[in-house]
Amino acid sequence: MVFLRNAWYVAAWSDEVSDNLLTRKILNEQVLLYRNAYGDLVATGNTCPHRFAPLHLGKLVDGAVECPYHGLRFNGEGRCVFNPDGDGRIPAGARLRSYPITERLGAAWIWMGDPARVDLSMIPDFEFLDDPDYRTVKGVLHVRANYRYINDNLMDEAHLHMVHHDSLACDMVRRAKTELVKDPDGTIWANRYGTDGAPPNIFDMMWRMTRDDYEGTMDHWVEGGWNAPSFVRNNTGVVLHGRPREEGLETKNAHLLTPETETTTHYFWAICRNFETGNDALDDGIRTGTEYAFVHEDEVMLHAVQEAMGEREFWSMKPALLQADVGAVELRRTLDRMIAAEQAEHPAATPAPRAEAVG
Amino acid sequence: MVFLRNAWYVAAWSDEVSDNLLTRKILNEQVLLYRNAYGDLVATGNTCPHRFAPLHLGKLVDGAVECPYHGLRFNGEGRCVFNPDGDGRIPAGARLRSYPITERLGAAWIWMGDPARVDLSMIPDFEFLDDPDYRTVKGVLHVRANYRYINDNLMDEAHLHMVHHDSLACDMVRRAKTELVKDPDGTIWANRYGTDGAPPNIFDMMWRMTRDDYEGTMDHWVEGGWNAPSFVRNNTGVVLHGRPREEGLETKNAHLLTPETETTTHYFWAICRNFETGNDALDDGIRTGTEYAFVHEDEVMLHAVQEAMGEREFWSMKPALLQADVGAVELRRTLDRMIAAEQAEHPAATPAPRAEAVG
Amino acid sequence: MVFLRNAWYVAAWSDEVSDNLLTRKILNEQVLLYRNAYGDLVATGNTCPHRFAPLHLGKLVDGAVECPYHGLRFNGEGRCVFNPDGDGRIPAGARLRSYPITERLGAAWIWMGDPARVDLSMIPDFEFLDDPDYRTVKGVLHVRANYRYINDNLMDEAHLHMVHHDSLACDMVRRAKTELVKDPDGTIWANRYGTDGAPPNIFDMMWRMTRDDYEGTMDHWVEGGWNAPSFVRNNTGVVLHGRPREEGLETKNAHLLTPETETTTHYFWAICRNFETGNDALDDGIRTGTEYAFVHEDEVMLHAVQEAMGEREFWSMKPALLQADVGAVELRRTLDRMIAAEQAEHPAATPAPRAEAVG
Repeated sequence: MVFLRNAWYVAAWSDEVSDNLLTRKILNEQVLLYRNAYGDLVATGNTCPHRFAPLHLGKLVDGAVECPYHGLRFNGEGRCVFNPDGDGRIPAGARLRSYPITERLGAAWIWMGDPARVDLSMIPDFEFLDDPDYRTVKGVLHVRANYRYINDNLMDEAHLHMVHHDSLACDMVRRAKTELVKDPDGTIWANRYGTDGAPPNIFDMMWRMTRDDYEGTMDHWVEGGWNAPSFVRNNTGVVLHGRPREEGLETKNAHLLTPETETTTHYFWAICRNFETGNDALDDGIRTGTEYAFVHEDEVMLHAVQEAMGEREFWSMKPALLQADVGAVELRRTLDRMIAAEQAEHPAATPAPRAEAVG
Repeated sequence: MVFLRNAWYVAAWSDEVSDNLLTRKILNEQVLLYRNAYGDLVATGNTCPHRFAPLHLGKLVDGAVECPYHGLRFNGEGRCVFNPDGDGRIPAGARLRSYPITERLGAAWIWMGDPARVDLSMIPDFEFLDDPDYRTVKGVLHVRANYRYINDNLMDEAHLHMVHHDSLACDMVRRAKTELVKDPDGTIWANRYGTDGAPPNIFDMMWRMTRDDYEGTMDHWVEGGWNAPSFVRNNTGVVLHGRPREEGLETKNAHLLTPETETTTHYFWAICRNFETGNDALDDGIRTGTEYAFVHEDEVMLHAVQEAMGEREFWSMKPALLQADVGAVELRRTLDRMIAAEQAEHPAATPAPRAEAVG
Repeated sequence: MVFLRNAWYVAAWSDEVSDNLLTRKILNEQVLLYRNAYGDLVATGNTCPHRFAPLHLGKLVDGAVECPYHGLRFNGEGRCVFNPDGDGRIPAGARLRSYPITERLGAAWIWMGDPARVDLSMIPDFEFLDDPDYRTVKGVLHVRANYRYINDNLMDEAHLHMVHHDSLACDMVRRAKTELVKDPDGTIWANRYGTDGAPPNIFDMMWRMTRDDYEGTMDHWVEGGWNAPSFVRNNTGVVLHGRPREEGLETKNAHLLTPETETTTHYFWAICRNFETGNDALDDGIRTGTEYAFVHEDEVMLHAVQEAMGEREFWSMKPALLQADVGAVELRRTLDRMIAAEQAEHPAATPAPRAEAVG
């Protein structure tokens, strides 16, 4: 399995990165993350090029990362700047790989490919993550499945009534067809709309908690929009039947997937709401509910699927397709094409599966 | 390592299979087992052909298996009969593999090869499992060894005095030679007979418990008969020296081995006796004693052998052979020939080791 | 990765081997170790050539090892001398591999290569292990790293100030350069000398404990001498500044590494001192301190390095080299040459990685 490399991935939420050394494996590479004295993000390899010790076990000294084995120090560009031993000579070639990294939308975005290709416009425009009118609850989970199965899951409204039958299931959405929309900017949408029916339990509860009791029916929308390589935004909300969407309750959610290995993924999630933005207790409820749904409902299934699939390629399994898969299929083919194009151009840029880059 | 595929294997004891979904890996394939509304056995693949979810996590609805991920339902022939989502269209190709399965001798027998070759006469004629004059105690154990080492162990009287020295060891049997007998029906027997000596502890105890104290010596027989691919019947008993075998105590035992993977096996065992057939306490004693002997004596050894062998082929190890191995060698060569013949005819029928069939 | 086979390795400390059967994996081969009735060391394969059972689960009977599975017995040369079963015939080819083994310097030395090449002069001359003027504290540790990284670590004075900063760190040694010395007998030395400064904490403490309080500065030496394939002697001591070394405190240490697999090592260590030789409490302190330093300081680092390296070859990683690596580099190249020469002569003598020899 080959990853798209000339792309941004989320390395961490902004508030995870500080002057404590943090390491995270991304696309099979062990990356070191921290902030320098100016508070700027730094991302380098985590393996000392001298004796291959893991740098995150060391510490920051005078703004440089000190290796815990022999004390070599590396600056934010990965250059060795100090050798405490003997003649103090700095060995030629003592460099860490340095990764382009930038802070946007409350996250640290890392570029895993050719630095000459860095393109900030490729960070997805999930503007709601930055919108002061929205209140955000977010977290990160570790998933024992390939990121592409999670992509599919997030674009798939057909699993809601089974996997999330107590919370997100909605009969009118179950009976709807998925509408595929392709934006000019490349976003692929898989949307479903239900009208004049009962909302999902979770929205029924939120409405009563944050507005009022209501009579009659509601309209409900679930929109999933994907951007390469593995970002899904999700607009989901309800409004009293026949009223304009603006009057309703809506959450805009971000699902940002970073492959750790071929079979595991860092899943950065954020639920953003434009109602009850000062309600701390609601934050806790959303966090608990989201983690419960993902860990006990989706992740169990995704891990079981990963176990059943092993290392086999998706299409080689000749999957049976439903109408509801229209979004997942479109994004899978799009990503297949992007990876194939990148490989055709720079096959050497892609390390073999399981190898870890040094430095 | 390649399995014989056009053959029956025990998937479960009859009473293990109900309208609860049961999954078991057999010959590296994950099989789903249950009973339909008529109480008939059903065996299909356990992996949904849509998104590869494990069906045993779902449930039976209106006699069909409902996938826990998207709610597709499959009937007992593996055909998709319902899609709850959207347009409700049933995707072409949404089929599970369906396995021939039949109920005999208190067990569910599954055919892992070409359905066109199904041959009920290939189920071994272990009639004592069905004989109302016999009382049966049975169970299933998981063994961390290739099934062929267990076959060998069960046909091997030479290990009794070492591995089972407190229970089945018998000096007159130790000193006897193994007699190889080949029945016209293909059964391969490895038999030993001891005469005019002390019986094994376990038979001495059973005689005193169920008959009377006795003086003098006994005759003792241990007969092991193998049928392809991995079924061993065992006749073992004692009688007062010189008296006809019919007057003695005898158990007829069935050892039915089903490969799970190359290195693990489902071991279905049954001990059948024609004495004290109404004695429930004896049932408990037999169950406890059998499981103790197997788990603490045989399995420890078989697992250690498996660890030492790894994935190496038996003959490549140039094993030293004893006279006592005459049965094990004969059955190994017979099975080697059967597998080679099947491979020569249909090599494609055999999945590569470790692959799991889908559906 | 290929091991040097025509070489001695330490199989055990002498006092570990008795008439209890001991098994240890050495160079990927499972070896059985015990003493015969005369107290002489015996080393054979641990896998019975009949049914591949692990012999260390058996016992010594009349001076022979009895297999726990069928009771075959093997003498110290690996020959089968008894079969308790049936005709009692001893099967042709029922032999265990027998390894040359000898007792020297308080250790059991095993020869893993061609027995015709056995050369006792290749046992390293670590005479202090036998010297009655020295008191020895010793032990064995299991390390989750390839033996060559441990070789390097033991010849590397540059890690002391980082990894052992509370005990062995010494600023004057840190600032010194490593002196490379090659003895005519092939020993490769990496030495460092500090003069007129503060000694390491551990020597400061030992001086005050065993001699007297002192004023002024000390001289300190750290000498590491390597012999193939994986033996490092270590002379380390202090003396009041300007006084002859003979007046000082010194420990001579032996570090004897035996590869278990490509990624794990048996580490036999001994700390020998020529002061306070009757002080039992000091023994305990040395044992505790040594095991603490190795387990909590070195082993953590070595295992992390092993994890980062995986199965990659050292030079393929293009390591950055420090002046302090002069000894490690010299011994690595020497060992590379020895292994290449052995392979060129007898490639077949070397089993593939992970295979276990039988017998």
